[in-house]
Amino acid sequence: MILSGKEIQRELGSDIVISPFDAARLNPNSYNLSLHDELLTYEEVVLDMRTPNRYRRLNIPPEGRVLQPGQLYLGRTVEHTETRNLVPMVASRSSLTRLGLFVNTNSGFGDVGYRGCWTLQIHCVQPIRIYAGIQICQILYHQLSGECEDYDSDKYQNATDIQPSKLFREIGGDDASDQQLELNFDELVKQASN
Amino acid sequence: MILSGKEIQRELGSDIVISPFDAARLNPNSYNLSLHDELLTYEEVVLDMRTPNRYRRLNIPPEGRVLQPGQLYLGRTVEHTETRNLVPMVASRSSLTRLGLFVNTNSGFGDVGYRGCWTLQIHCVQPIRIYAGIQICQILYHQLSGECEDYDSDKYQNATDIQPSKLFREIGGDDASDQQLELNFDELVKQASN
Amino acid sequence: MILSGKEIQRELGSDIVISPFDAARLNPNSYNLSLHDELLTYEEVVLDMRTPNRYRRLNIPPEGRVLQPGQLYLGRTVEHTETRNLVPMVASRSSLTRLGLFVNTNSGFGDVGYRGCWTLQIHCVQPIRIYAGIQICQILYHQLSGECEDYDSDKYQNATDIQPSKLFREIGGDDASDQQLELNFDELVKQASN
Repeated sequence: MILSGKEIQRELGSDIVISPFDAARLNPNSYNLSLHDELLTYEEVVLDMRTPNRYRRLNIPPEGRVLQPGQLYLGRTVEHTETRNLVPMVASRSSLTRLGLFVNTNSGFGDVGYRGCWTLQIHCVQPIRIYAGIQICQILYHQLSGECEDYDSDKYQNATDIQPSKLFREIGGDDASDQQLELNFDELVKQASN
Repeated sequence: MILSGKEIQRELGSDIVISPFDAARLNPNSYNLSLHDELLTYEEVVLDMRTPNRYRRLNIPPEGRVLQPGQLYLGRTVEHTETRNLVPMVASRSSLTRLGLFVNTNSGFGDVGYRGCWTLQIHCVQPIRIYAGIQICQILYHQLSGECEDYDSDKYQNATDIQPSKLFREIGGDDASDQQLELNFDELVKQASN
Repeated sequence: MILSGKEIQRELGSDIVISPFDAARLNPNSYNLSLHDELLTYEEVVLDMRTPNRYRRLNIPPEGRVLQPGQLYLGRTVEHTETRNLVPMVASRSSLTRLGLFVNTNSGFGDVGYRGCWTLQIHCVQPIRIYAGIQICQILYHQLSGECEDYDSDKYQNATDIQPSKLFREIGGDDASDQQLELNFDELVKQASN
């Protein structure tokens, strides 16, 4: 069973935390979350599951930023959420998929007990200008059947920033390479021009 | 909980309306909906969330139409549906995703109380010839927990036609620009050749 | 309602079969399935829903294989599953969608009673090197409301191999063309070089 909007509101502060919360963003059976102004893109010709992949940060300026097909963008929600005894799920909004912009394609299921902002996997079919602050996705809550232990992985829990994939920890490399390399292009350009 | 096919049939005329309905299209836990013969594509080099985006209509002739990757197609179901006290969801069929054709990617959740045909967001990984009337997607019904108010937005309710995105109403422009511009290419070509 | 990991474990051998099963792959509300070492790709410039489409088999060698955007890959799970009285669903894992790799986009719903390995529809936004044996997707279980007949289609039931689309059976051709043509490229190359 999926929680109605009224039920989501009733659970606030107990099984559900959404912060900040704005009652105007409640839908009949979901709540709209909004897009922060930062994006990550990977800086590799070929990504590799076994190794950390280099990435860079992009800003979404007030005039918006044009996303290109063939490029994955990682973003995050403005909102911090916590969920207990329910299965949270983040889904695209039809107003955005009607423009060919997809969020969290078929992996919107979170784990019971997940705390943090949501890293959003964003890609588009055609070039599209997006803006920070838009209501980019919706969160739904499925009821849970059976006892559970809360999610306690150290992989993505308590996220306050965009989280690139940590799959390489499962299948690959040594712990020493456990840090993704973040490229500071401004710094690199400054060095190159000296 | 998701309704079984038999339960969907039992709810027909009360919480569920599917019109036309054909019992042969019932699955163990869903019902197959079919594709109307009209498509919309946007006519913009870069789509913009803040403004209405121009589009054109395409027909699917009896010999089919080849869809191209890198292009979003908006279609619609032949069927008109109504749903009360349940959360309707439209999902791709595996027979189509096995050909790289995706429908409503991760935004298949409707709102309790939605009435109308369904606008389908269609895109493909490889070029593919499609035909009108095919069983293009399936509708599932999740039970709802908690009281609810039915969906009463004037954005997409009671649709009898393909509905392009109305996101610009939320974040953008003045009401004067509330109409998407539909381009009549036949007319434009006729004028150009005069 | 979605089954918790503990509930999935409790149902093993009765309503749920997952073989092989490894308790370490249980999540709070899902179980991770792994990728077999074979892939299929279609060998057609334009796919056609009405006819069987030719395909070829690819292997994933130990050093991995680079997947390319604009190409659909059909894979399969190592695991054989059976599900009774529950709706099984296969979803991407966020560790993979964070790399732009999507599995079973929005068609992850199986039918009550489905038995077999799962054919996976795989595509990527950017080129990515993948490996056989990785935990590529997760299976979730929704409870079912209402009586049901188990899935008994002969289309995909009891799969022990990757299953290309059989949509053409619904809308198209004669039974004589009911076999997809599998191309044996090694054989063709050998013949060509003689």
